[in-house]
Amino acid sequence: MSTRYPLPDLDQLPEDIQAKILEVQQKAGFVPNVFLALARRPAEWRAFFAYHDALMLKEDGNLSKGDREMIVTATSAANQCLYCVVAHGALLRIYEKKPLVADQVAINWRKADIAPRQHAMLEFAMKVCQRSHEIDDADFAALAAHGFTDEDAWDIAAIAAFFGLSNRLASFSGMQPNAEFYLMGRQPRPKQPA
Amino acid sequence: MSTRYPLPDLDQLPEDIQAKILEVQQKAGFVPNVFLALARRPAEWRAFFAYHDALMLKEDGNLSKGDREMIVTATSAANQCLYCVVAHGALLRIYEKKPLVADQVAINWRKADIAPRQHAMLEFAMKVCQRSHEIDDADFAALAAHGFTDEDAWDIAAIAAFFGLSNRLASFSGMQPNAEFYLMGRQPRPKQPA
Amino acid sequence: MSTRYPLPDLDQLPEDIQAKILEVQQKAGFVPNVFLALARRPAEWRAFFAYHDALMLKEDGNLSKGDREMIVTATSAANQCLYCVVAHGALLRIYEKKPLVADQVAINWRKADIAPRQHAMLEFAMKVCQRSHEIDDADFAALAAHGFTDEDAWDIAAIAAFFGLSNRLASFSGMQPNAEFYLMGRQPRPKQPA
Amino acid sequence: MSTRYPLPDLDQLPEDIQAKILEVQQKAGFVPNVFLALARRPAEWRAFFAYHDALMLKEDGNLSKGDREMIVTATSAANQCLYCVVAHGALLRIYEKKPLVADQVAINWRKADIAPRQHAMLEFAMKVCQRSHEIDDADFAALAAHGFTDEDAWDIAAIAAFFGLSNRLASFSGMQPNAEFYLMGRQPRPKQPA
Amino acid sequence: MSTRYPLPDLDQLPEDIQAKILEVQQKAGFVPNVFLALARRPAEWRAFFAYHDALMLKEDGNLSKGDREMIVTATSAANQCLYCVVAHGALLRIYEKKPLVADQVAINWRKADIAPRQHAMLEFAMKVCQRSHEIDDADFAALAAHGFTDEDAWDIAAIAAFFGLSNRLASFSGMQPNAEFYLMGRQPRPKQPA
Amino acid sequence: MSTRYPLPDLDQLPEDIQAKILEVQQKAGFVPNVFLALARRPAEWRAFFAYHDALMLKEDGNLSKGDREMIVTATSAANQCLYCVVAHGALLRIYEKKPLVADQVAINWRKADIAPRQHAMLEFAMKVCQRSHEIDDADFAALAAHGFTDEDAWDIAAIAAFFGLSNRLASFSGMQPNAEFYLMGRQPRPKQPA
Repeated sequence: MSTRYPLPDLDQLPEDIQAKILEVQQKAGFVPNVFLALARRPAEWRAFFAYHDALMLKEDGNLSKGDREMIVTATSAANQCLYCVVAHGALLRIYEKKPLVADQVAINWRKADIAPRQHAMLEFAMKVCQRSHEIDDADFAALAAHGFTDEDAWDIAAIAAFFGLSNRLASFSGMQPNAEFYLMGRQPRPKQPA
Repeated sequence: MSTRYPLPDLDQLPEDIQAKILEVQQKAGFVPNVFLALARRPAEWRAFFAYHDALMLKEDGNLSKGDREMIVTATSAANQCLYCVVAHGALLRIYEKKPLVADQVAINWRKADIAPRQHAMLEFAMKVCQRSHEIDDADFAALAAHGFTDEDAWDIAAIAAFFGLSNRLASFSGMQPNAEFYLMGRQPRPKQPA
Repeated sequence: MSTRYPLPDLDQLPEDIQAKILEVQQKAGFVPNVFLALARRPAEWRAFFAYHDALMLKEDGNLSKGDREMIVTATSAANQCLYCVVAHGALLRIYEKKPLVADQVAINWRKADIAPRQHAMLEFAMKVCQRSHEIDDADFAALAAHGFTDEDAWDIAAIAAFFGLSNRLASFSGMQPNAEFYLMGRQPRPKQPA
Repeated sequence: MSTRYPLPDLDQLPEDIQAKILEVQQKAGFVPNVFLALARRPAEWRAFFAYHDALMLKEDGNLSKGDREMIVTATSAANQCLYCVVAHGALLRIYEKKPLVADQVAINWRKADIAPRQHAMLEFAMKVCQRSHEIDDADFAALAAHGFTDEDAWDIAAIAAFFGLSNRLASFSGMQPNAEFYLMGRQPRPKQPA
Repeated sequence: MSTRYPLPDLDQLPEDIQAKILEVQQKAGFVPNVFLALARRPAEWRAFFAYHDALMLKEDGNLSKGDREMIVTATSAANQCLYCVVAHGALLRIYEKKPLVADQVAINWRKADIAPRQHAMLEFAMKVCQRSHEIDDADFAALAAHGFTDEDAWDIAAIAAFFGLSNRLASFSGMQPNAEFYLMGRQPRPKQPA
Repeated sequence: MSTRYPLPDLDQLPEDIQAKILEVQQKAGFVPNVFLALARRPAEWRAFFAYHDALMLKEDGNLSKGDREMIVTATSAANQCLYCVVAHGALLRIYEKKPLVADQVAINWRKADIAPRQHAMLEFAMKVCQRSHEIDDADFAALAAHGFTDEDAWDIAAIAAFFGLSNRLASFSGMQPNAEFYLMGRQPRPKQPA
């Protein structure tokens, strides 16, 4: 990790942050670096993860968890954000149950083995990421042709925009992805009994 | 405002959001559109303003309120975000007590009548905004030469990154600045008795 | 103003230039800096303003004075020219009688509150400004759909091209807009008896 | 030539324009298309050529005629202006007495067989052409290191800026260079008795 | 030529390379610099010219020799490769029997006096050159509309791609075109008896 | 794989190509798609792999096999070439014995865990890839400061240039990397007895 912004000790952090981090650790088996890297600024940490959860754990709408991680992976690759591509690429592989899809989306989403509606979704997300000032009615119409509502458009745009923030924080501060992420979801999971 | 995402009625909003909005209205004399535009998504609203306040109302460090609004104005102009340039340009004029500075910063910050340390601050902010993946030690050194610490660098970067999010939300959704903002701070204030 | 190219004294200038400047001063109440800044080169001054007047005072065709200033404001913003955006933005507000329009056009003309024909006009002007080598028949057809003739297209192109010259001169030489321009036309004029 | 803006008949043009065109024809052996193409707009024609002559026939300063045409050729190539590269490339070959230099400058001026001071001159001219809003003191210092004064800098910048106007007019209107230009100056001239 | 990578002596080269170079010299009347410049690396030389010949001397398909040189000229100009634009521009003039076409294609291929099918061919070639990751079915359809098969598309793409390699080698190493190329094909050939 | 350019049957290919492919298959355990995809054009296939081997199997000079694959991975990512990033990223992991390095280099090479000399090497390679026309003496000096000779510079440039060709072929034709590549080298190899 960056020596400029060293990770804080877990036990020095405010209790609510400690509790959330321990919960994540229990679930994932390790503490993703973003949780510690941002925790040196508790107020920003709380807002960041509240925003993250509002967008990524939102229950209604037409975006699957895999769709959301795909947006993150594609736009973070455009921003050349090492942390987010590696960490969210891992989640993308897992949610989509496709060991190859994250690399495809990160390298050239146009050639990735994804559904046409996901292609349209990424087209919109990438425009929000790179040329949001040029978004116009035609962009919403292109989404609607694949069944995305205006609320879905908001979800897509907000995820692209939020991770644009995340990308810039990670890149400027030299945040490194945990080694665990690189390998997650690369092996097809054996079928589980239902 | 956009007909795609109509502003909600104030009295339909959750109480905590209503309360905050009424407080802003009392202070500013009007409700800036961003408060209503984002309120259709209460969880996102709460996270957004918590983040905003953590960065813009932060009390320590070497950035003045004017410095912060200057970062917002310059980076929002680079992102061609109508709402943020107009609204935060108004705040920039007021905090800096310079009626001309916001237009200068928005049009070409390199030619603006600002202090050399502000020039260095904007250089860093613009790189975070546009090429965060290329930030390296030399960028921090350039800040340090003007007395900015690594914590100040974090503030600058986080403000640029957060408003990159804000810019994308405002642009994609067609958010319009309130007419009041355009004129605020353009007349030199008469001197007040202390 | 730039110390590299100091403004000449009015009474040292050739008589024809003095006369024109005094005329402008009488009308505007002040001498816009461009008149003095370029006057250090009388032959260039004469050609510049002759060209300016040929385009901006041209009496026939379908472009209003407001249309012309709108082209100047949008293309000068793309070129990040402080002088031209501030000075011609002021004229745009006055001719269009819209106190907000100049900031909108300068920050993101696509979101400005302008007529569809003005949107098409700016689309053409911006292409001349930024990618003139790619102009083709489809661009003229898009103009024609809004009632613009080929002569109007010439007007639009020539204004965009001429102010591209003006933008470069102002930026390289550090020309600063007069303080007066920043505020002009920002207050709705009281109605006048006819 | 473009059918959209057909060339006018010489004898329909105002007398002063006819006279100038005939003079050019006598000297060059043909009428360069720009003289007819712009003549459909006499007021613009007069301003254009007055400006052209003020910059290109200026007698003082440290820029040779070859230097001036070199600036035109390099910046017009950056703007992909067919007319100006071909026509002024011809003049560049003639003034510099170098049959190969125009193609070199047009294709990649950095590799052209030119003097170091011309390299610095083109560096400045290209920045005015492409990023005039970023010109700063360091750019003038780089010129000064090769003996260019601030007045020379103005000459360089004004030529780059004026031909940026010319490039846009020629490209948008489909102006074609006369066939004669393509071959001019490509054969080393036999030595003449003094 | 570059002093960094001096041209080898012909008689120091492997026999097969000497033989090929002498053959070219006999045909062209001089040795194009690329043959000597690359010969300092015999294995690379052999692969380079084998690839070149496979693409440029290919006998079947719908691309004429002029078409191929046109692709080389246009894409090499986009890459600002002095050697390839000058050398292959010469061949383009000769094969197309059009003394003006190479300069037109190099400066702005969109305005060149070429057939509509050649325009479509260059559109595809330029996209391969500059944005190959965005090529999609619509690009092949645009070619097909002008009678180009998928095998022709491969030819176009492979030529653009191969000369992208050539351009980078020539530019990084400072390869200079032979003076002979600049003038070749600029004079209309006198008609020959059949 | 692309249906536009279906892979040929191995036994329909010329004998020399069959032999080479079988040799690769024996070594790698599978046939990388590029060997079949290009084999539909035997002459191009032979030249391509001859060039590849001349650069990638070259025995002298200061570039390790890992260095070479690192250049391929970084430049192919800049060109958004799915096939080359995945296939050569695999080789990079293996040669460097670093399971994480390929993703780092592909996403943002500036932040990758590589040696300073490799950073300088990639800086040069990326400039050849993206702006070869701007390469100048300072670029060679920056390499020399890390012990790279002019011959090494040629190796770096030629690899970047050759894979620029490969990237364009793979992208335009829709070449897909074999599934095997995605996982290769991601697990640290158990230590082997010497």
